[in-house]
Amino acid sequence: MTQNIYDDPNFFRAYGQLPRSLQGLDAAPEFPALRALLPNLSGRDVLDLGCGYGWFCRWARSQGAGRVTGVDVSERMLARAHTMTNDPAIAYTREDLETIKLQPKAYGLVYSSLAFHYLDSLERLLGQVRSALAPGGRLVFSVEHPMVTAPRQPGWIDDASGRSCWPVSDYLREGERSTDWLAKGVIKQHRTIATYVGLLLRQGLHLTHLEEWGPTPRQIAAQPALAIERERPPFLLLAAD
Amino acid sequence: MTQNIYDDPNFFRAYGQLPRSLQGLDAAPEFPALRALLPNLSGRDVLDLGCGYGWFCRWARSQGAGRVTGVDVSERMLARAHTMTNDPAIAYTREDLETIKLQPKAYGLVYSSLAFHYLDSLERLLGQVRSALAPGGRLVFSVEHPMVTAPRQPGWIDDASGRSCWPVSDYLREGERSTDWLAKGVIKQHRTIATYVGLLLRQGLHLTHLEEWGPTPRQIAAQPALAIERERPPFLLLAAD
Repeated sequence: MTQNIYDDPNFFRAYGQLPRSLQGLDAAPEFPALRALLPNLSGRDVLDLGCGYGWFCRWARSQGAGRVTGVDVSERMLARAHTMTNDPAIAYTREDLETIKLQPKAYGLVYSSLAFHYLDSLERLLGQVRSALAPGGRLVFSVEHPMVTAPRQPGWIDDASGRSCWPVSDYLREGERSTDWLAKGVIKQHRTIATYVGLLLRQGLHLTHLEEWGPTPRQIAAQPALAIERERPPFLLLAAD
Repeated sequence: MTQNIYDDPNFFRAYGQLPRSLQGLDAAPEFPALRALLPNLSGRDVLDLGCGYGWFCRWARSQGAGRVTGVDVSERMLARAHTMTNDPAIAYTREDLETIKLQPKAYGLVYSSLAFHYLDSLERLLGQVRSALAPGGRLVFSVEHPMVTAPRQPGWIDDASGRSCWPVSDYLREGERSTDWLAKGVIKQHRTIATYVGLLLRQGLHLTHLEEWGPTPRQIAAQPALAIERERPPFLLLAAD
C-alpha cells in the first residue's frame, strides 16, 4: 500500500493550509491547462483518482457531468470532502489505488491530479483505467514533472553564471524518492517521461496530448514567485484515449 | 537556411575525428536503441534526413532495404559519403531540410539521427515526412534531449551534496541556443519534449515510442565515462507512424 501521508495529522494540517486546499481549483495554476484537455463533461460519468477534498468532483458536476465518483486512500480527506457537498450524484469511496478494481466501460472521463507519482504500481492501475473507459472515454492526468522528482538534492541552486537552475541528477534511476514536503520523509515514485508514455502505450491507449506545464506570462504578472517555474516545468500533463 | 556548421572547415575537421565519424554506428552508443525501433527493412525504401557520411544508408542496405536516399545540407559530408559506397541503390542529395519537398507515399522508413535540433522550422518538415510515408511506413528519429539543449550554462556542476548534476534552466523558453561544440557558436534549436510530441500529433502521426536514452550497464562497464549520462539522458528517441 502507498504511504498515505495525507492521513498523517501533521501533514494533513499543513496541507489544509495550502492555497489549493483552501481555494480549490482556482488556486491550482495548472488547472486551466488540464481543463483544456477535458472532453465536454455534459452527461459523462467521471472518475477522479486521488480526489482529495473533492474540488474537481464538484466542479465536474457544475459542468454537467452525470455521476461522479471520487476515490482517495485518505480517510481524513474524504471526511472533509463529504462535508463539502450533498450532491447525490457524487460518491466518495476510500480505496487504495494500488489495488482498486474499476468497473469496466463505466466512465467518459478518468481524471487524476498529482496522485500517480505516489503509486508504486502504476501499470496495474492504468490497465484498470483502460478497461474502465467507456467508448470514446478519455484519461487526463497530471503528475509532478520527472525533472522535479529525479534529483538527489532537489532545490534551486546557482548555475555557473550565478542564476537559478534546477539540479537534475539520477534521472534514469527510477523508483522511490523521499522528500521533505510539509512533513519529513514523504515518499514519491520517480518515473521518467518515457516511462509514463510507455505505460500508456503498452496498455493500448493512444497518447493525445503531452504538456510540460509552466505558468503563463499573465499568471506570472499576478504572482511573480511563479516565474522560476519556467526554468523547469513543475508538472507533466497527459491525455490519452 | 540552417547554419550548416558542418561545412565550416574547422568544424568538419574536428567532427571527422569523433569516434562516430571514424567508426560509424558501432561508435554511437544509442544506435542499438534506435535500431530496435526500426521496422524490418527488407524491401523497404528508406530516407535518411541528415545522413552525414552515410553510415546509416549503407547499413540499411546491408539489412535488405530497397532504395535508400540520404539527404544532407553539408557538401563536405556528402562528398565523403560518396567516396564510401558505390552501391547504385544509394542516392545522396544535397538539400536544406528547412525547404525540402519529399515525394508522397514513397518511403517505408524515414530516419533521422541528431539532425532535427538544428532546424528552425521542424513542423513544415514533419508535414512533408507524414505525406512521404508509404502506407505502414514509420518515422524514427533522435535528437539531443531537451534537458541538454535548454540550459543557459550547459555543463555539469556540483549539487548541494558535491555530486554532479545537470543545471537545467530556461527549459520552457524555446528557440535558438548557441553552444561551443567543436567550434564556437554552433546554433541549435531548443524544443521541449512536449513540443516534439505535439508536432508529431498535430501532423496526424501516432506516437508509438518515446525513449529518453541513457547508456546500459554493459556500455558503462566497457566505457566508464558514459556513466554520467544516466544522471540526465543525452538523447531523445521517437517513433511514429
